[in-house]
Amino acid sequence: MRIGIFGTGTVGQTIGTKLVSLGHEVRLGSRSADNEKAAGWVKSAGKGASQGTFADAATFGELLFNCTAGGASLEALRLAGAGNLDGKVLVDVANPLDFSRGMPPTLTVCNSDSLGEQIQRAFPGARVVKSLNTVNCMVMVDPARIPGDHAIFVSGNDAAAKRQVSDMLRQWFGWRQVIDLGDISAARGTEMYLTLWLRMMGALKTANFNVAVARGA
Amino acid sequence: MRIGIFGTGTVGQTIGTKLVSLGHEVRLGSRSADNEKAAGWVKSAGKGASQGTFADAATFGELLFNCTAGGASLEALRLAGAGNLDGKVLVDVANPLDFSRGMPPTLTVCNSDSLGEQIQRAFPGARVVKSLNTVNCMVMVDPARIPGDHAIFVSGNDAAAKRQVSDMLRQWFGWRQVIDLGDISAARGTEMYLTLWLRMMGALKTANFNVAVARGA
Repeated sequence: MRIGIFGTGTVGQTIGTKLVSLGHEVRLGSRSADNEKAAGWVKSAGKGASQGTFADAATFGELLFNCTAGGASLEALRLAGAGNLDGKVLVDVANPLDFSRGMPPTLTVCNSDSLGEQIQRAFPGARVVKSLNTVNCMVMVDPARIPGDHAIFVSGNDAAAKRQVSDMLRQWFGWRQVIDLGDISAARGTEMYLTLWLRMMGALKTANFNVAVARGA
Repeated sequence: MRIGIFGTGTVGQTIGTKLVSLGHEVRLGSRSADNEKAAGWVKSAGKGASQGTFADAATFGELLFNCTAGGASLEALRLAGAGNLDGKVLVDVANPLDFSRGMPPTLTVCNSDSLGEQIQRAFPGARVVKSLNTVNCMVMVDPARIPGDHAIFVSGNDAAAKRQVSDMLRQWFGWRQVIDLGDISAARGTEMYLTLWLRMMGALKTANFNVAVARGA
């Protein structure tokens, strides 16, 4: 499959590397076609890896991942071009974290809105599925790093898109507890959860953790 | 032990009933000394149960629980009397949920502040420990309703108070995975998590669930 990833940071590279290792063709998109981080990744990821502008990645991909920093996501997607997103599944992995006021970070949007909703509103032709934003990127693509079944969430307005992403999470990455939270407004929940996630990371002194959902009778 | 509980709703009654069943003396406090819901609870809970005003409950209790609705908590605690809270451990179970704008509810405070912090700031003499607000009240007092080890959080500025509450959670209620998230500002995390909790409740079609924290090597 041809996959476009927006963002050349650790999250985009980690997802890209995993997808290339599965035999997919992956194009990492950024502001410039010759981004150095992307170039380094293309070299190390090997066959199937390429780089380009946000628009190049959007045009290339049949499936798209938003792995940009949350505060930069809307601008990056504008540069990708609304028309290039139309009809495509866009997995929104970003979190609207604002580190500018120090630690712990706050969210640039929350409570009555979310980044996932902002993206879906700004690009109504994209089939946005919020997912993977609740775990560290190493865990995103390799949930077996943590013992037992633990949870990953999907939310979005397009049921078929959510099914496709859920299948991908199970078959490509190995997730077993995939929980559909409903429409894209549920992104408020998973984005606001980051506030708790960051505190847990501090308490556990590792990012290599996740929550499992346990239920009674 | 003598325990004061602010709030006569399901949460206050459920915690009160459990504490009475353990042999403690529990006074449920509300705006009026003859609150009907409290009177019904006193009758059903039996020996050790009593009712009174917020100030009565505060004066009575060596240990205090805030089980009022989040939007009413500061006012309830003002009525309880700052002097009556001084030096006492106050377990803040409340969530600042605002249902006035319809479903899903929003939070009256979040992101750069929390109800737990507001309470600690308003009543600096109280030893506030945020806890139990991340699960349904039946689960609060009986975690064994859900199979396996699953998580309950504590946060607060007073280490001894957190230890006391953690011991109580383990020994009285049976919690096994008690996670100390740090100072009271971590209440932002557990209160904002409610947004995700509510979506999970919708997806799972039950409130009888919780998250377990799983970690890798």
